[in-house]
Amino acid sequence: MTYVVGVAGGTGSGKTTVSQEIADALGPDRVAILQHDHYYRDRPELSFEERSQLNFDHPDSLETELLVEHVVALRDGHAVDVPVYDFATHRRASETTHIEPRPILLVEGILVFVERRLRERLDLKIFVDTPADIRVFRRIRRDLEQRGRDFASIREQYYKTVRPMHLQFVEPSKAYADVIIPEGGRNQVALDLILARLRGIAEGA
Amino acid sequence: MTYVVGVAGGTGSGKTTVSQEIADALGPDRVAILQHDHYYRDRPELSFEERSQLNFDHPDSLETELLVEHVVALRDGHAVDVPVYDFATHRRASETTHIEPRPILLVEGILVFVERRLRERLDLKIFVDTPADIRVFRRIRRDLEQRGRDFASIREQYYKTVRPMHLQFVEPSKAYADVIIPEGGRNQVALDLILARLRGIAEGA
Repeated sequence: MTYVVGVAGGTGSGKTTVSQEIADALGPDRVAILQHDHYYRDRPELSFEERSQLNFDHPDSLETELLVEHVVALRDGHAVDVPVYDFATHRRASETTHIEPRPILLVEGILVFVERRLRERLDLKIFVDTPADIRVFRRIRRDLEQRGRDFASIREQYYKTVRPMHLQFVEPSKAYADVIIPEGGRNQVALDLILARLRGIAEGA
Repeated sequence: MTYVVGVAGGTGSGKTTVSQEIADALGPDRVAILQHDHYYRDRPELSFEERSQLNFDHPDSLETELLVEHVVALRDGHAVDVPVYDFATHRRASETTHIEPRPILLVEGILVFVERRLRERLDLKIFVDTPADIRVFRRIRRDLEQRGRDFASIREQYYKTVRPMHLQFVEPSKAYADVIIPEGGRNQVALDLILARLRGIAEGA
């Protein structure tokens, strides 16, 4: 048996840190992670320019049906090959990442509670809820420092897709959460709660 | 050692149900409960009419300094005598309730995160967050069915004190929560998380 944990939250909420801290605390023998944004659709029929203009914050940009297939396979004890997405070319790479089944499966992404077919596969739904101003500072910093982008383009993308898609999809999906964690990975009290539960499950599995 | 858990949330949020389910699941040898609304100040100098007009939703109406004393005493392994408040006469009764120290102490009330002297005694702060329309239907039903009140007086009190005090004190205190539980006692997934953590603590105590 695999216990499937969804970790959602807006950009910069700290959801990746939460997932990573859970994975580090429980160890690779007990946890596998699937990230929704590895499942961006490949669109070879479009030019690079056209692909760059896609709305990557909309659920339709993701091949969620493949992610659901992988969740089901891992639950049934089968390994899966997860796509690798190349954000520089906006194409799916030819290689894949091999993921083995583990007692705990984390499924992480801003949109993992949005579609019912994925949502109903999640045994525990954690929403990482961080104030919008803090989220935005984190995103700007990450894009400036790690992705080599300039402030003007970060700002343009934020108003064009990130913010409207957050309001339309991410924020309303909080209503499906079983538990809401303020502030993400810096919230040790909440992490201790989650870890106590997942350790019990992994030991019983 | 005692682990102190604060359970806050607006009127009708389900916080009493959450506390009761935790207490039932862990049993009376492991859990003690202090309810903030047993600590309403006694005001013998006022007439009944004057007492009835007090704002019972404001933090000043509660003897929080006595509650803090009791939390400290129970943490230190000493039993306490909790006041009994008579809501019919708006007076503190002459009898008290004897509470023995237990490994887990729940402190429950709409305002338990508001004052720093109490808040800093809480090891885990749970905010039960339920939509306002559902909270209001629960409160109206409780007051009609269990407290023999009529709809007009419930509505008057709601607009006069319950709602303004909620917006001024209860809702902003959610920012101090370590974890937010949507929907209260009907949320079994969240209860299972909390119980896993508290069982581990009670066994280690």
